[in-house]
Amino acid sequence: MKLNGEWARSVARTMDGVRILDQRKLPWAVEWVELTSAEMAARAIREMWTRGAPLIGAAAAYGLAMALRGDPLSLDRAYAQLLETRPTAVNLRWALDQVRDHVRNLPLAERAEAAFARADAICDEDVALNRAIGKHGLALLEELHARHPDRPLNILTHCNPGWLATVDYGTATAPIYLAHDQGMPLHVWVDETRPRNQGALLTAFELSGHGVPHSVIADNVGGLLMQRGEVDLVIVGTDRVTANGDVCNKIGTYLKALAAHDNCVPFYVALPYTTIDRSLASGDEVPIEDRSGDELAWITGPTADGAFAAVKVTGSPVHNPAFDVTPARLVTGYITERGVTAAI
Amino acid sequence: MKLNGEWARSVARTMDGVRILDQRKLPWAVEWVELTSAEMAARAIREMWTRGAPLIGAAAAYGLAMALRGDPLSLDRAYAQLLETRPTAVNLRWALDQVRDHVRNLPLAERAEAAFARADAICDEDVALNRAIGKHGLALLEELHARHPDRPLNILTHCNPGWLATVDYGTATAPIYLAHDQGMPLHVWVDETRPRNQGALLTAFELSGHGVPHSVIADNVGGLLMQRGEVDLVIVGTDRVTANGDVCNKIGTYLKALAAHDNCVPFYVALPYTTIDRSLASGDEVPIEDRSGDELAWITGPTADGAFAAVKVTGSPVHNPAFDVTPARLVTGYITERGVTAAI
Repeated sequence: MKLNGEWARSVARTMDGVRILDQRKLPWAVEWVELTSAEMAARAIREMWTRGAPLIGAAAAYGLAMALRGDPLSLDRAYAQLLETRPTAVNLRWALDQVRDHVRNLPLAERAEAAFARADAICDEDVALNRAIGKHGLALLEELHARHPDRPLNILTHCNPGWLATVDYGTATAPIYLAHDQGMPLHVWVDETRPRNQGALLTAFELSGHGVPHSVIADNVGGLLMQRGEVDLVIVGTDRVTANGDVCNKIGTYLKALAAHDNCVPFYVALPYTTIDRSLASGDEVPIEDRSGDELAWITGPTADGAFAAVKVTGSPVHNPAFDVTPARLVTGYITERGVTAAI
Repeated sequence: MKLNGEWARSVARTMDGVRILDQRKLPWAVEWVELTSAEMAARAIREMWTRGAPLIGAAAAYGLAMALRGDPLSLDRAYAQLLETRPTAVNLRWALDQVRDHVRNLPLAERAEAAFARADAICDEDVALNRAIGKHGLALLEELHARHPDRPLNILTHCNPGWLATVDYGTATAPIYLAHDQGMPLHVWVDETRPRNQGALLTAFELSGHGVPHSVIADNVGGLLMQRGEVDLVIVGTDRVTANGDVCNKIGTYLKALAAHDNCVPFYVALPYTTIDRSLASGDEVPIEDRSGDELAWITGPTADGAFAAVKVTGSPVHNPAFDVTPARLVTGYITERGVTAAI
């Protein structure tokens, strides 16, 4: 998508490797970092310069390619080094497997080039997937916009299901970007998404960069907006959808789904088919990660004079679960690369 | 309630006037300020050293008494000066009317003493009101606790319906304090309450001071906790209840009411009868105040080295409505000074 007037992907080839955005500094500083070795790629993933399942996979794939460029015999060592950066990231393993399986029976001299080609393909496939999600979602937005052609379509989203978490387009944002690019007037309500503020920091940054009108709101606000008819639809991403269609996503998603249901606002989940985990019967089986209370108790940002500071939000005990599960009964539909479906 | 081991009211008589807490600095600094003149009282109200409808009323009543102590002829001037500090605060006018009507036909020499006495009575009446709310709510808590006597009762609340907003006890917190004081094991989930963080800052501070176990949670978290059975009831306060029982309260209350309803968790509203506004048929008629986006876009707190800083949360446009309306159909009951009622 566009950033400072230029089209960009969140990971792109350079002469010596790949460049990524240092997402820890967004939106306050836009710093591209060039990764030129497997070690650098591993560090960027481990220290969360880069984040989002598809993007981590792509960065790791390039990391493996860079290792092979330096030493074609380093395949297993580099694979292990990159895999351990984020042990629970399913997509990371998948991408590394893709590259390893593609090159391991090749002559040593051909491995690096083949690995880069496979990493490029992983990126292109991710972009194509998200664009397909976007196209199916776009048809939905067009239908809803046609009901009120005289005003912008109001879309609410939560967390960062955007291009910064994928290679391009994002999942829930893909229909928004396509609609915007073809001239549909729209406006996005961006949930702040406490405690990590991915909405206020990342989604708002993305939408700004691409020129999509939007407003940041406290997570408490969406219900009122829906009561007032100021939300035409909700689109969110997901970390995992279980066999029955329950949706695990960033904490707070469930509350927005309840409000959408109570106000007859369509509630859509955008996802690639790979996010469906048929090994789990329902959301009851999804483990919910409890994260450090410091994520809520401290907040970091720039001060008025441009310095950075971390300030305390509370000194009391904090409980900080990271995800919740939205029951399938509250989901109007799932926007996938294969089309929109009312049930999984 | 207790603060640093001592019982305190949020406004109390001193030799020369009254003392209040400077609530702008809570919970980071506990500073009592002595108000010795109507001018100081007006400033404390205008600049929000003190807040909460009943407390503002009490502070204004004392302000008027202090004016009469200095000049028994200053009744109308001081009344006007204090009234203009927060023009929309209904309780402020009510308290000032109480004092004015009580003293204006008295001999000049008796006015000040009578005004102080009436202000004292306003405070005592507020405390008695909240204690009565507390007693009726306590019976509810006892009933719910009896269902699971083996574990603490889990109560979720939103914003600051506590003693810092009243003279003592608070509204929604009154049953909690009474239950705690009689030995019931309980634990309070305190919603952070973005964007002004009254939960994380004030409610958590109150509960800490009185020794009530509690955890601060992001506003996004309550739904998950209710799904998991980790909330036994929700109690909130309210700014206004309309004739049909709709509840205007801090933004985000509606989302918690939806989650409570979806999970069969009782959802109670604690209020004095005076909060019922029968002039409005339903919540549709309640005007919702849009406040400055800076409330969301900036956050102020102490840094690790003890200095204070304001840091930016977002640079994007912000929309910041302050209240929402919870439909009466989602309210299990109203806890008032006269008893608990299922309908208004």
